Amino acid sequence: MHRLMRPNTTRILNIPLKAPLALKGGGKLDALEVACETYGALNPARDNAVLLCHPLSMDAHASNNDEPDIEPGWWNFFVGPGRAVDTRRYFVICTNMLGGCKGTTGPLSPRPGGGLYGTDFPAITVEDMVSVQRRALQELGIGHLHAVIGGSLGGMQVLEWAVRYPDFVDKAVAIATGAHLSPQGLAFDIVGRLSIMNDPEWKQGRYAPEAELQMTGLQVARMIGHITYISRNMMDRKFGRELQNGSEGGTFATAFTVESFLRYQGEKFVKRFDPNSYLYLSRAMDLYDLTEGHEDIAASLARSHCAFLVLSFSSDWLFPPESSLDIALALARIGRHVNYVCIPSELGHDAFLVEEPDDPQSRLVGAFLRS
Amino acid sequence: MHRLMRPNTTRILNIPLKAPLALKGGGKLDALEVACETYGALNPARDNAVLLCHPLSMDAHASNNDEPDIEPGWWNFFVGPGRAVDTRRYFVICTNMLGGCKGTTGPLSPRPGGGLYGTDFPAITVEDMVSVQRRALQELGIGHLHAVIGGSLGGMQVLEWAVRYPDFVDKAVAIATGAHLSPQGLAFDIVGRLSIMNDPEWKQGRYAPEAELQMTGLQVARMIGHITYISRNMMDRKFGRELQNGSEGGTFATAFTVESFLRYQGEKFVKRFDPNSYLYLSRAMDLYDLTEGHEDIAASLARSHCAFLVLSFSSDWLFPPESSLDIALALARIGRHVNYVCIPSELGHDAFLVEEPDDPQSRLVGAFLRS
Repeated sequence: MHRLMRPNTTRILNIPLKAPLALKGGGKLDALEVACETYGALNPARDNAVLLCHPLSMDAHASNNDEPDIEPGWWNFFVGPGRAVDTRRYFVICTNMLGGCKGTTGPLSPRPGGGLYGTDFPAITVEDMVSVQRRALQELGIGHLHAVIGGSLGGMQVLEWAVRYPDFVDKAVAIATGAHLSPQGLAFDIVGRLSIMNDPEWKQGRYAPEAELQMTGLQVARMIGHITYISRNMMDRKFGRELQNGSEGGTFATAFTVESFLRYQGEKFVKRFDPNSYLYLSRAMDLYDLTEGHEDIAASLARSHCAFLVLSFSSDWLFPPESSLDIALALARIGRHVNYVCIPSELGHDAFLVEEPDDPQSRLVGAFLRS
Repeated sequence: MHRLMRPNTTRILNIPLKAPLALKGGGKLDALEVACETYGALNPARDNAVLLCHPLSMDAHASNNDEPDIEPGWWNFFVGPGRAVDTRRYFVICTNMLGGCKGTTGPLSPRPGGGLYGTDFPAITVEDMVSVQRRALQELGIGHLHAVIGGSLGGMQVLEWAVRYPDFVDKAVAIATGAHLSPQGLAFDIVGRLSIMNDPEWKQGRYAPEAELQMTGLQVARMIGHITYISRNMMDRKFGRELQNGSEGGTFATAFTVESFLRYQGEKFVKRFDPNSYLYLSRAMDLYDLTEGHEDIAASLARSHCAFLVLSFSSDWLFPPESSLDIALALARIGRHVNYVCIPSELGHDAFLVEEPDDPQSRLVGAFLRS
């Protein structure tokens, strides 16, 4: 998939705006489109809607809902008929986030006055992403959510939903996330963005998006990200110091399998993701802080009414278990209904995107949604 | 200090070669110079020589030996009169490593036939670095070492000394190191090197070394390195999510203190280090494997005769305590004299370069050298 393309199962909602959409950072948008997929059907009581919030590099195509002619989605094992997020039971909605590059308004969208936004796109925040999701649901006629579910940057959106629209949401499932990113996580993102901006192909964000670019700066950013998405032990097991035959890459390449793996990840990513979009989204993730304007996590979460399921993975070092536990303990302190589970896993942060035998995430989320 | 300059306390040993120096990777060197500093004096018994092996980005200037007019060296708190490595007691030698950019033969050296080596410099290994140190000691008239001491990449050199020249060394102090780098460590180095090589200023290594270059690729590599040199907890304590007033850096910069810290580290580093040298040295570190040609660490270390002090730091995640423990346990298994201490510290990998109150590293190394 080229980075400008979206899955053809995704439809675009054209959201009518009475006035320009004001963003948290002071910017405005005159038009708003949201790429959207839905699975299953809204029941007559209109109380079975479930919203999925995707992580940074994903899109609205969460599942193929077992349609054999459609490519599997990024959460296929988790969303579909009979799965944890059961599309025979729930009306499931997934939208591409604001600032994304898979159909929702973002740096690749046409700018009023001609051309594409590029880096003239206004700064966006997690709060803005959630506002836009709210508008999209309105457009779909959804006035209430049985649940909102998301991991990583999607999990931050879940937390924001719970505190900002407390009467709209019954259940919140926040996976592999936190009230904010750690300084170490910030540091990796900062270096990734510098790498993109230092790439001569980036041209201050004014590259031609249809060009076949190397975008090595984005490749480096993705490789840094990838190292933080998987655990140290998993790297030991998966690669060790194993050598690969016939690997290329110039004088300073090594023949280590981990090198060809990382290069492959980088090359694959630039074909499907827009560098400017990456800059906007990763900065939004860095700036998010659930506690902003409140004394602490508990004070912020006191605005919520819903029941929570908080999941972490033992080997996640981008959003380590403690950052999920902080949320769970804060919820417990203010008397909210909360289940917290740290799932033992060697997969690291990416564990929520991978099906495991007798998948604990599926079991736990499935039971929580039905409870 | 500009990256082409070395401290003026450092002298250059011109090592006579009867035949070209054959390197492990198949390359050859026709001439060899080694930048060197010494502190203290060789005693009449000629049995008080101590060799220091520096980590990747340091040089021969380990200490000013309390001379007030000389800049402190990188291990000043640890090496000097009355310090752990007591220059009133020992004749201390520190040489810039092969492939470095502080006076020892490396990519900045003149190439036979004119011009500088640049990326025509042959591939080097930790084994080659140790061979060159051996030659330098010969040149200084040192036929035996009371001790060899080093941290990180310098610690790998210590291990190599112990197994390759077993009769030359009485005591080996290996700090914050391992028999090899972990796959996660390799991954960060690989991304760092790609970042350097993707920098248009790098020009396949044929940049003019005297030019005032941004070398943003090297800056990114250094920033990645820096994140791995300090611990997660230390980043939490030192920076948190604190904001800095008046920070600059374009649209996608954040105001986080950690961002200005990282940028400063990157900018400072390019002024004092050569990108090609970084490529050669980091690749040598990645490729080193003490067990090469042997069944395991114990089988490799069975070649050594000396006593060992192995030190790690609890929060080091580049060379975590387990990688030091692996060495200590292997030495214990084969009946070598070994002390292993994991020093509690929040400083991460860089802890060995920082003086702590009642400095445990100084206490332990001082006692071990005198024992």
